[in-house]
Amino acid sequence: MKRSFIREILEHTTNETISFAGGLPDEKLFPHLALRASAQHVLSDARSLQYGTTQGYLPLRNKIAHHYTVEGFETTAENIMITSGAQQALDIISRYHHHEAITIEAPSYLGAMNLFDLNQLEQHPVTLYSDGIDIPAFEKSFSQTKLTYLIPDFQNPTGYTYTQEKREQVARIIKEQQGLLIEDAPYSELYFKGKNQSISALLPQQSFHLGSFSKVLAPSLRLGWIRADQKILEPLFAYKEAMDLHSNGLSQAILDHYLTDQHRYRSHTALLRKMYSKKMQVFKTYLNELLPAFEYTVPEGGMFIYGKLPGISTSALVESALKQGVVFVPGREFYHNPERDDEIRLNFTNCSAKEVYKGLTILAKIYKKEVQINKKAA
Amino acid sequence: MKRSFIREILEHTTNETISFAGGLPDEKLFPHLALRASAQHVLSDARSLQYGTTQGYLPLRNKIAHHYTVEGFETTAENIMITSGAQQALDIISRYHHHEAITIEAPSYLGAMNLFDLNQLEQHPVTLYSDGIDIPAFEKSFSQTKLTYLIPDFQNPTGYTYTQEKREQVARIIKEQQGLLIEDAPYSELYFKGKNQSISALLPQQSFHLGSFSKVLAPSLRLGWIRADQKILEPLFAYKEAMDLHSNGLSQAILDHYLTDQHRYRSHTALLRKMYSKKMQVFKTYLNELLPAFEYTVPEGGMFIYGKLPGISTSALVESALKQGVVFVPGREFYHNPERDDEIRLNFTNCSAKEVYKGLTILAKIYKKEVQINKKAA
Repeated sequence: MKRSFIREILEHTTNETISFAGGLPDEKLFPHLALRASAQHVLSDARSLQYGTTQGYLPLRNKIAHHYTVEGFETTAENIMITSGAQQALDIISRYHHHEAITIEAPSYLGAMNLFDLNQLEQHPVTLYSDGIDIPAFEKSFSQTKLTYLIPDFQNPTGYTYTQEKREQVARIIKEQQGLLIEDAPYSELYFKGKNQSISALLPQQSFHLGSFSKVLAPSLRLGWIRADQKILEPLFAYKEAMDLHSNGLSQAILDHYLTDQHRYRSHTALLRKMYSKKMQVFKTYLNELLPAFEYTVPEGGMFIYGKLPGISTSALVESALKQGVVFVPGREFYHNPERDDEIRLNFTNCSAKEVYKGLTILAKIYKKEVQINKKAA
Repeated sequence: MKRSFIREILEHTTNETISFAGGLPDEKLFPHLALRASAQHVLSDARSLQYGTTQGYLPLRNKIAHHYTVEGFETTAENIMITSGAQQALDIISRYHHHEAITIEAPSYLGAMNLFDLNQLEQHPVTLYSDGIDIPAFEKSFSQTKLTYLIPDFQNPTGYTYTQEKREQVARIIKEQQGLLIEDAPYSELYFKGKNQSISALLPQQSFHLGSFSKVLAPSLRLGWIRADQKILEPLFAYKEAMDLHSNGLSQAILDHYLTDQHRYRSHTALLRKMYSKKMQVFKTYLNELLPAFEYTVPEGGMFIYGKLPGISTSALVESALKQGVVFVPGREFYHNPERDDEIRLNFTNCSAKEVYKGLTILAKIYKKEVQINKKAA
């Protein structure tokens, strides 16, 4: 098994590196003092350190369920299982469905494709457009696989978002074929215009909806969840139990206490949306100024800008950039069967405006040089 | 996949239940105020909430490595990977070694056997005696499997401990056969007489030594580790990364800060040993008084007393006891191929002396009744 390019890169960068590579939230926006106060409260009681239940801390499950219900997707604590990040949620589900076939987006989330490999699922990639997956190709693929993994909101790596029409089409196909949807939604709260309806809400009995606190609160807590019908959720408990008994109980209790003040949490996510939207605008402005050749769709939320740099191979670009202290991820990393090598993914949430300017200036210089070399060679 | 009897039982007990079932530490001994102070310190810095590295927080790995080195088992941070409890450590290793054969103790830790099933390892049980595994049978089995899972200190479920002689015999066999040892050591610090040498220390290149903070500090942190030679440790990083990216970073930082005061940590584990030794003595006294028919070996550490109740089937006992508010685990749960049904495992760390007396009184009454019924039937 090979490691993720992104995580290996991340582990070899220094404090000086300008990183457009990872999906790192902006540390300046972490509510660490509020979480500190919650930790203070929770750790006054020794019981917060004892073993917990496999499905997860009930008060926290209640709060997550409530969040769905107020948005019109009726949910109870019985529909929620807490996991060690959405990453583990994906492992549990794909481990249960090992050796099956699965329809995925092309490109897709690298960490998911690695898990599907590990759990020996046969991956069937279908092209993702800027308005959602290719519907006829999806219908054909899904009729064979009966299982699909989709990221409809501000997808990783592309930043693309499904239209409401495509959401309904996908839901109809899954319903007709009596299959299952795994909907990964770590970025759904990071919308710039408005919140999208999840496809899972159209398919309550046939969907696993994966959520995460990593992008909206704090990655180090490693807390995510699965929302699903009890009938398909309960068989997963034995897997979760075998894998790590239960997720970190201290963090669950701290998070639960923090979420008790719903007004504060709503203000926090509103602030994140505002700040990330601003950051994206800055990134876009600099991109258009410094790297006008870059072809991309402006994202409506999330953490990534994805696009094409015509006329070069990004493999060469990534190496030169790393030497000059700038990292990003070449698009080919996100394809199950890499075909093209002229796309790149850029994270816009982690760097300051100054770093973005500096990093893009370096990238633009390398790009121009590469294009000239390629022209001469041709 | 079926769930663990113990965890299902734990989830269905109330505050009133007297539980000899789980391996629960005594909550009264959790150092929650010290950990609260560490949380206070760590959460003053927002960076404690960011993503971390897959192998684990370097300062914490350094401290764990140092602990081995001062005990004469030379270790660096490169030999340590932090995991979400020793449970996940076992999952990672057995996932890497999926479809292989493995020699295990009979009886053995239920959570390990479940993982070996999940990862499709062929389990070869070898009888465990009160002084360690049956050496000739182990040698024969290991020559075929080349991989073994052992718990030499205060084993779960039996409380048995390997003699130094048997440790050396096991190490010799593994060395000769050029195989691998998985040594699970969650209870090793909970010794009443003195600390045992790990078998891994005799086999630095051919062993995974699994440690955990669950039994000596706090289970809810879900933090454990693997100590191994870099050559066999590094291939596991890709698995860990796919499974949950990395273990809870906040808890790693809190724990690291707590461990900075080594004197305090040593005092804490010394206190645990003293208190658990006392608790075991109380349990033993009540057992001998109330249930003199119980045949067992007095443990030299750990959390469990294991033994035989002649003349009955524990299946009947467990049901009647549950109805009267007392839970424990029948020994057959710990066998890969259950043969006998007259053994039980009793945890002595969790209940107060009063609860132990009450619980054992109830068990003794049910036992006497069962024996009489069985006599009449015979």
